[in-house]
Amino acid sequence: MTENLYIYGKNAVIEALRSGTRNFNKILIADSMRFDEKNEQIKSLAKDSGIIFQFVKKEKLNQIAPLVQHQGVIALISPIQYTELENFLETFKDESAPLIILDGIEDSHNLGAIIRSAVCAGIKGIILPSRRSAQINSTVEKTSAGAINRISIIKVNSLVNAVQKLQEHNYWVIASDHHANDNYFDIDYTDMNFAIIMGAEHSGISKSLLKLADYRVKIPMLTNFNSLNVSNATAIILFESVKQKLTKK
Amino acid sequence: MTENLYIYGKNAVIEALRSGTRNFNKILIADSMRFDEKNEQIKSLAKDSGIIFQFVKKEKLNQIAPLVQHQGVIALISPIQYTELENFLETFKDESAPLIILDGIEDSHNLGAIIRSAVCAGIKGIILPSRRSAQINSTVEKTSAGAINRISIIKVNSLVNAVQKLQEHNYWVIASDHHANDNYFDIDYTDMNFAIIMGAEHSGISKSLLKLADYRVKIPMLTNFNSLNVSNATAIILFESVKQKLTKK
Repeated sequence: MTENLYIYGKNAVIEALRSGTRNFNKILIADSMRFDEKNEQIKSLAKDSGIIFQFVKKEKLNQIAPLVQHQGVIALISPIQYTELENFLETFKDESAPLIILDGIEDSHNLGAIIRSAVCAGIKGIILPSRRSAQINSTVEKTSAGAINRISIIKVNSLVNAVQKLQEHNYWVIASDHHANDNYFDIDYTDMNFAIIMGAEHSGISKSLLKLADYRVKIPMLTNFNSLNVSNATAIILFESVKQKLTKK
Repeated sequence: MTENLYIYGKNAVIEALRSGTRNFNKILIADSMRFDEKNEQIKSLAKDSGIIFQFVKKEKLNQIAPLVQHQGVIALISPIQYTELENFLETFKDESAPLIILDGIEDSHNLGAIIRSAVCAGIKGIILPSRRSAQINSTVEKTSAGAINRISIIKVNSLVNAVQKLQEHNYWVIASDHHANDNYFDIDYTDMNFAIIMGAEHSGISKSLLKLADYRVKIPMLTNFNSLNVSNATAIILFESVKQKLTKK
């Protein structure tokens, strides 16, 4: 039997329902909740899939998920299914499938925001190390606004091995490193399958990974305050790739 | 007498010390802390300014700042000084001083990350409404990594009045709105003094502000998942402006 986890927030629950890949135990809705479009959507998606929903006192929800904005909706569901890197490469062998590699991101809010931007930018998978990394928990599900259900999450024991495997499969590996000479916008993202490595909040990318990368790029600043939040830095690079793809003649 | 607030985290404390604009009551350091470069910096900056620092048990810090990553350092200091819009315009009347206007951002993590990206991107001020907005608290200080000490924070009663005043002062006002026709990268940020309006996490920008804006721009996506985190969206637009400024021939 799989352990259930709770997810909260309207978007997180709607996207999990839509994905069709999560097993729902039940959905709890605050009985005091005003019914808006999103709540109606949750009710109708749940009905269509035969999922139980219960109206409960808001205090009950506050007990289950304290100190968070649950927006009156909590679902008890199965954790996401991780994807094997081998399977990912097989699935996408005939199409472009850009990736992000996160080398030791610790903060769940950052991980959630990165997943969200990644889905918006057409990224197909996120590679995480099995140790020294934020794991997919309720906070990540919420801050991803449900985007976690639209992307492959790949957990690997060794990021070095994963990068080598990607390179064997003709991926160009780009490391974000503020000591780099090249700028992130000097690269042409449109004619290659890429994997972008982003480093941990404090320590950056490990040396062994930096050495393997095909490109190193920095985000140039206008001031000497050189310290972007890692999810913001990821979004900046990703949306340069989006822009290039949309504007390429 | 001003009320003290606590700020935590090494960067937040270092930047507050460096700014010279904050009154420190004292700095508490965990006695168990291993001394690295940043801690030494805190000690030496504090000594230079005659600020008391105390070594205390880590449990004491956990009591003062529960559930957060204080990194072994907490400072009790005066809140930031807000800037009047009039004074800001007077101070920067002879130079370019781009601004961000935040229409009802609720989440402290988002506000902190936006301030951080803004400073990196050479933005000189953040305009917040006095109501319906996250306020500058300990979380914002921490998630801004101290950037809050390098930018003017301007609180206004009416964003509409503020926008009109900016327009009288030859600012071009750009609203980020996902219904817009133009893309954020269609605009030339290099030959104007701009103010970018970003909307609240759920409700976006209010209609009265949208109507006033000189430009509306969207961030185009590669998928139908159209839902960027607001700090990521802000970073994407800001760094397009940085890129243009750095690459303009």
